[in-house]
Amino acid sequence: MATIPDGWNLDDSGKALARSFKFKDFSEAFAFLTRVALHAEKVDHHPEFTSVWNKVDFRLTSHDAGRVTERDVALAEAINALAERVSPAG
Amino acid sequence: MATIPDGWNLDDSGKALARSFKFKDFSEAFAFLTRVALHAEKVDHHPEFTSVWNKVDFRLTSHDAGRVTERDVALAEAINALAERVSPAG
Amino acid sequence: MATIPDGWNLDDSGKALARSFKFKDFSEAFAFLTRVALHAEKVDHHPEFTSVWNKVDFRLTSHDAGRVTERDVALAEAINALAERVSPAG
Amino acid sequence: MATIPDGWNLDDSGKALARSFKFKDFSEAFAFLTRVALHAEKVDHHPEFTSVWNKVDFRLTSHDAGRVTERDVALAEAINALAERVSPAG
Repeated sequence: MATIPDGWNLDDSGKALARSFKFKDFSEAFAFLTRVALHAEKVDHHPEFTSVWNKVDFRLTSHDAGRVTERDVALAEAINALAERVSPAG
Repeated sequence: MATIPDGWNLDDSGKALARSFKFKDFSEAFAFLTRVALHAEKVDHHPEFTSVWNKVDFRLTSHDAGRVTERDVALAEAINALAERVSPAG
Repeated sequence: MATIPDGWNLDDSGKALARSFKFKDFSEAFAFLTRVALHAEKVDHHPEFTSVWNKVDFRLTSHDAGRVTERDVALAEAINALAERVSPAG
Repeated sequence: MATIPDGWNLDDSGKALARSFKFKDFSEAFAFLTRVALHAEKVDHHPEFTSVWNKVDFRLTSHDAGRVTERDVALAEAINALAERVSPAG
């Protein structure tokens, strides 16, 4: 299997990649989510995400395969690249 | 206490209002989230939300009070009004 | 050439399709723009748009061809379909 | 009158502040617009904007006053602060 991208981990189920991001405020977090949404539509692979004000938690899995696939690894890398652009706070 | 808005329930903790919405697709769900985000910034009270493709789950609580307050009830009513405008699928 | 989609016109230059939409308020207009943005990224063809509160004006052209192409016609049809879903006010 | 914020100019009509921003790509430009939209709803003062892929042009005026007011100056400063956070390309 491919290397797990920087900052991500397999969650407890072993079937999803997970990572949390923390931003300066809600506005910055939501703009980041908007960029992730634009990317997800483009590649037709969508993350699960939970937002609590300035925090965003992602869970990436391939529902059809029932496990982490290359598409999730690629999505995790794309999310990392977007997060770097907006300077997450933590 | 105020009446719980239509479609919402107290979650298991008893400290938050919860409701799930289902839309036609990711695009419609995310546009709805954008409207909720615009409203949340305006009233400075933000929902917790989880998105899984066309589904959005909300959890509304007042962190400072540690329980559901009038602000959560008002936010739930505002979210209901926005959802009606975009014709949720279920 | 293909039929011009309902509600659209060639602008004065003859090189772009144009249409204006009016919504209930800014929030509804911006959520509609978000859906158009998600679609544009997916198909890698982006409209020019101008927003003035509840109004959105589009101008669709294919910069590489210097004229209206099938891609613009398809984008105009997609924008029409999205607008119908959010019940534009005028 | 207040000082015109950095990077802004009075447009030809003399009744609006104008500034153009250029970003890395459409995604970055639209995420920036989303942040501006969230701010605009919060302060209930909305910019006119035109988007052409990675470029965004703003025009700020107070329609009720028919000229630039303190609200436009404050909005221009807020837009500048948001643009700095996302590192516009030009």
